Amino acid sequence: MKMEDFVLVSVDDHLVEPPDMFKHHIPAKYRDLAPKVIQRADGTDAWVFEGQEATNVGLNAVAGRPPDEYGAEPTKFAEIREGCYDVHERVRDMNANGVAASLNFPSYPQFCGQYFARAQDKDLGLAVLRAYNDWHVDEWCGAYPGRFIPQALPPIWDPQLMAAEVHRMAGKGCSAVTFSENPEKVGYPSLHNEHWDPFWRACSDTGTIVNLHIGSSSSVVITSLDAPVDTMITLQPINIVQAAADLVWSPVLRKFPDLLLALSEGGIGWIPYFLERIDRVYTMHRAWTKQDFGDKLPSEVFLERIVTCFIVDSFGLRSRDALNLDMVTWECDYPHSDSTWPLAPESLAPHLDGMPDAEINKITHENALRLYQFDMFGKIPREQLTVGALRAQAGDVDLGFRSSERLKKTGTDTVTVLDLAAKLPTIN
Amino acid sequence: MKMEDFVLVSVDDHLVEPPDMFKHHIPAKYRDLAPKVIQRADGTDAWVFEGQEATNVGLNAVAGRPPDEYGAEPTKFAEIREGCYDVHERVRDMNANGVAASLNFPSYPQFCGQYFARAQDKDLGLAVLRAYNDWHVDEWCGAYPGRFIPQALPPIWDPQLMAAEVHRMAGKGCSAVTFSENPEKVGYPSLHNEHWDPFWRACSDTGTIVNLHIGSSSSVVITSLDAPVDTMITLQPINIVQAAADLVWSPVLRKFPDLLLALSEGGIGWIPYFLERIDRVYTMHRAWTKQDFGDKLPSEVFLERIVTCFIVDSFGLRSRDALNLDMVTWECDYPHSDSTWPLAPESLAPHLDGMPDAEINKITHENALRLYQFDMFGKIPREQLTVGALRAQAGDVDLGFRSSERLKKTGTDTVTVLDLAAKLPTIN
Repeated sequence: MKMEDFVLVSVDDHLVEPPDMFKHHIPAKYRDLAPKVIQRADGTDAWVFEGQEATNVGLNAVAGRPPDEYGAEPTKFAEIREGCYDVHERVRDMNANGVAASLNFPSYPQFCGQYFARAQDKDLGLAVLRAYNDWHVDEWCGAYPGRFIPQALPPIWDPQLMAAEVHRMAGKGCSAVTFSENPEKVGYPSLHNEHWDPFWRACSDTGTIVNLHIGSSSSVVITSLDAPVDTMITLQPINIVQAAADLVWSPVLRKFPDLLLALSEGGIGWIPYFLERIDRVYTMHRAWTKQDFGDKLPSEVFLERIVTCFIVDSFGLRSRDALNLDMVTWECDYPHSDSTWPLAPESLAPHLDGMPDAEINKITHENALRLYQFDMFGKIPREQLTVGALRAQAGDVDLGFRSSERLKKTGTDTVTVLDLAAKLPTIN
Repeated sequence: MKMEDFVLVSVDDHLVEPPDMFKHHIPAKYRDLAPKVIQRADGTDAWVFEGQEATNVGLNAVAGRPPDEYGAEPTKFAEIREGCYDVHERVRDMNANGVAASLNFPSYPQFCGQYFARAQDKDLGLAVLRAYNDWHVDEWCGAYPGRFIPQALPPIWDPQLMAAEVHRMAGKGCSAVTFSENPEKVGYPSLHNEHWDPFWRACSDTGTIVNLHIGSSSSVVITSLDAPVDTMITLQPINIVQAAADLVWSPVLRKFPDLLLALSEGGIGWIPYFLERIDRVYTMHRAWTKQDFGDKLPSEVFLERIVTCFIVDSFGLRSRDALNLDMVTWECDYPHSDSTWPLAPESLAPHLDGMPDAEINKITHENALRLYQFDMFGKIPREQLTVGALRAQAGDVDLGFRSSERLKKTGTDTVTVLDLAAKLPTIN
């Protein structure tokens, strides 16, 4: 299969919430109380809710910057590429990158809505969270049917409310919810606690996949205080191995045999090692740890139930016979610094070279569409969703680097995908 | 190559220090002050030094127990198999397992001698540490020339003393020293700090390999307080990925281009993923993180300088073309619960099946002998060191399970390797 014929569905991208997001969705009595964007005295932007400021207007949203500016966190909307918060520009950026559809994680509310969970007035918190979810489905995803896989935020402070919201969102066609890779670190019971059973049951009953994104424990592994930042960047994806181990040995997968979870941005190349390890731990230690997987091995349960995804993972793809190829998905990570945008097809193609078309289709889009129950082809004909077809619509999208200060262009001419592909040594 | 013809050198086993270890090695003036074993009122044994009791008489030394008793930590010598602390019994246990030579980590002093480092009287602490090292080389390793690869403990509280001890031990034929995977967590500067340069330089100058054992940060990753113990067991080896990342991005490898380090018990199957990740981080982020590896990639530096080892790692062996096969070593982990003893050959053979003899020899012993500069074949002819030859001497070694309470036998007859191989489902 030629690169131009790929159909790319990314199961992990990020949106930056626009300031007017609550306008049409918050109940009238809460209108003045919903989160608002303010400009602070130092010129930076912040969200404010119940007097608490969130300066994370666009976590690591550095798409389009020169690489030597990846380290500077955006502090205001003027420093963020429009495609992060404007859905029309987002679709143009997706087209330029040949991406047919995308699932978007939140920015300022944090990965599992912790910002809303901190509300003193829990009724207000729930109203705001539901307004967020309605905005996400109706406005963001609704603006371009077939282009965005919807995902709900959960009211993490109450498992019964979480269950109700999962059902409500399923009724709106949403089959994904974001949750924490380690809820204990966010201040709630751990994955091992039955506290979450109403939530798991609702997800299981509605076929809603629970996405555990790296970093969703609101903590990062710091090896030492003076470690270079490269250490943290290196470890961020593989740290999800901790959640993977928790899931395997917790009662969750065995208690809810239809529940699926995804390790978002976790990579895949380490997983065959992990599967061998859990089976060895089971075989050697179950006599005293009393684990029981019935007639299965832990690795089999993992392979059946855990959705994996990767940005670039040549070794993982090469080792795909040790994975469940029906559960491997791809992601772009726009607009974060690890993203392959706007050269995702070029970054992916070398690693799919020689792979049978059926396998390429599974990894690039079929698994994502099936698992997230997303009827993309029912909305848009396949031939309009290939890399080649999408890019043909995007000739006027300016892909030139823009400096983070005021997003000024560093060059004067429009820079295209081809220019970039020729200019960058490699982004694989 | 047939299993009986393997020559197995294990680069990671553990000894339990016998109570009389200081008898011949401590200077006269410190004789009464050296650590001693006491029996406590509750019947347990402990080491005592400067009034501080160490109850870790034999960390996880459960070799020979029934698997349903692996979870009970030994609290006295009577609960530990003799081969842990009696070198003559140890060699018999090695013979029964077909292991030609073994490198032994300490138990009660902790992985990098933290117990001695806590001495209030640092002169005494140094005298005790040197006596430990002399005992280790002269008595333990010296009892059976060619069967034990010596390893030094470092006086971790002073890099100059560490350098001197590395030189002193090199003079006694010792080419390995144990250190911490994360010295910051043990209360010292991190791997990124030039504090350790005298130590690195001494190791580099003497060709001494620095062994970083899993758990040598005196900390384990606890995902949550109610996680089943299986979670911790699963993660223990791969947690060394944190030290691997620290090493790659620290100045150490680039500042000391001849220095070698080993990730003891770290496994190998996750490493190809890790290598791809560090190269991607380098390519994508070096413009702002300012890392510089000259004309190399980080993965090349890792492959040249980091010794890896595994107990059982089928996927890692299958993926060996993505590793440096000259740096892959094997370990048995006797007498800990993850050990393959006494069926190490049976656990290894299926994964070496079909591999060229030259590769098998590298992994099973040649790399270990070359890297640790250990002239095993100069002491004992090769034909006496094969699995088959060693086991032929060990027909009278009783391998029957013994219950941890008083080490009582659960059966009455001597149990052999063949009995066990037939009885156990698998220990791979």
